[in-house]
Amino acid sequence: MACEFKFTRQVEFSDTDMAGIMHFSNFFRFMETTEHAFFRSLGFSIHTTGSDETLGWPRVHADCNFKHPLRFEDVVEISLLVREKSEKGIVYTFIFRKLNDHPPKEVARGTLGVVCVKRDKADGKMTGVPIPRAIADKIEVAPCEI
Amino acid sequence: MACEFKFTRQVEFSDTDMAGIMHFSNFFRFMETTEHAFFRSLGFSIHTTGSDETLGWPRVHADCNFKHPLRFEDVVEISLLVREKSEKGIVYTFIFRKLNDHPPKEVARGTLGVVCVKRDKADGKMTGVPIPRAIADKIEVAPCEI
Amino acid sequence: MACEFKFTRQVEFSDTDMAGIMHFSNFFRFMETTEHAFFRSLGFSIHTTGSDETLGWPRVHADCNFKHPLRFEDVVEISLLVREKSEKGIVYTFIFRKLNDHPPKEVARGTLGVVCVKRDKADGKMTGVPIPRAIADKIEVAPCEI
Amino acid sequence: MACEFKFTRQVEFSDTDMAGIMHFSNFFRFMETTEHAFFRSLGFSIHTTGSDETLGWPRVHADCNFKHPLRFEDVVEISLLVREKSEKGIVYTFIFRKLNDHPPKEVARGTLGVVCVKRDKADGKMTGVPIPRAIADKIEVAPCEI
Repeated sequence: MACEFKFTRQVEFSDTDMAGIMHFSNFFRFMETTEHAFFRSLGFSIHTTGSDETLGWPRVHADCNFKHPLRFEDVVEISLLVREKSEKGIVYTFIFRKLNDHPPKEVARGTLGVVCVKRDKADGKMTGVPIPRAIADKIEVAPCEI
Repeated sequence: MACEFKFTRQVEFSDTDMAGIMHFSNFFRFMETTEHAFFRSLGFSIHTTGSDETLGWPRVHADCNFKHPLRFEDVVEISLLVREKSEKGIVYTFIFRKLNDHPPKEVARGTLGVVCVKRDKADGKMTGVPIPRAIADKIEVAPCEI
Repeated sequence: MACEFKFTRQVEFSDTDMAGIMHFSNFFRFMETTEHAFFRSLGFSIHTTGSDETLGWPRVHADCNFKHPLRFEDVVEISLLVREKSEKGIVYTFIFRKLNDHPPKEVARGTLGVVCVKRDKADGKMTGVPIPRAIADKIEVAPCEI
Repeated sequence: MACEFKFTRQVEFSDTDMAGIMHFSNFFRFMETTEHAFFRSLGFSIHTTGSDETLGWPRVHADCNFKHPLRFEDVVEISLLVREKSEKGIVYTFIFRKLNDHPPKEVARGTLGVVCVKRDKADGKMTGVPIPRAIADKIEVAPCEI
């Protein structure tokens, strides 16, 4: 079972803003990208399409505390930790470390709370459902503080 | 029948990059937003959903020539002109004018070529279709150079 | 003195994702855009450039709780409320209401915590500074719950 | 001397739109990211900061022809080819191939025309300058059609 995952990424020009730093909204995109890579590492896609329905994971909560900026071409390692797992949802913590500082420096820390839904293909409506057993069985709450 | 349309927008902080100017990819977002406002002005939505199919307008061509940069809080007027209309597609020209310069200055000029498709809800596949009559009847090629 | 501000915006195609709803990261962009419109309503720009330094407002905290999705062409009113004002920072609450539901429905609620900094033009380093008097004098903590 | 470069990337959830495909504006972001990786492969950064000035490469032209859509988690290889090199600018062609099709399929092809500028730190004004010799010497026009 998996409770931690690391993903590395380089800050791109289009991630920056006129203050010369990565725009804060992109930390949330990076969290999500890490979550999806975590799912792939378990053998799943975050977006599963059946004949009439699609399984999805809308966000119900997101937060981030920003300690230091990231700049163009910085290399950032994002650690995902599973904080909570319930019947219908998961809470993840994400820790951002700038790897091109020596030693690597924590620059931000955030949270995503997600729920599992079925999305009706005809009208797009989303209904909360239990996390599929095959997925739930592979995800474990991280045992300790980091 | 309509062949020209104007839309005004203000450059936002998240539209800028570390060079202090609007990131060039956002000119394409602004063109599309203007196209969609044009459709609304005709009484349509660009995205029409039926029971089994969705009508969509994927882009087959996009270009832009950039003459002057746009900066944070600049107010830009985007003029849409219908350049070509065929059975299955439309070509638009877009002219960007910075209104907070006196006189307003053309800063960029671009093109979108779009085709009308039906998107199957079950598998997402897109198939080219004739532009619905109700829409085609309301759109006219702009008569002259601007 | 101002403690509340409303800004209205329409969800664009490029704001959506393959789940058919506005991507959650864009709620944060919308909060920031509302903050900047609030500043303009007070007669200021969020981004003030002097000869050697630039005044900026980096985010130190951001959060959002998502109750209902927003979809393409939804019209959303974003209410900004000043929650806290200290010597060097401001905390805002943002309430998102979907105006094309009758009655308008609250779809999300979020927070931005920002600090005032001077950014050195030569090396880009940011240093926390007191909020300029002219700005601080115009901003007031909202008196009551909403 | 270098005239060709390949960069591989996976389509992310936030790159998609409600049509279920990568939003067309992101093809332009991917071109730019490839250009910057090309520069790093030569030992340079696209963004060079001196004491009073910054060297930059604003885009004067961008275009793209879209043949097939890209979807979430598609793996795309972007080939950069130097098409033209003049005293002050470079024109690149980019070819997008979807690697998870067998055989890989060309899905899009685009162009960026860029010019070298010095950006004054005090007022942000950009002035065209010759490409620095150290950079120009390492870049060669691709010899043949691909």
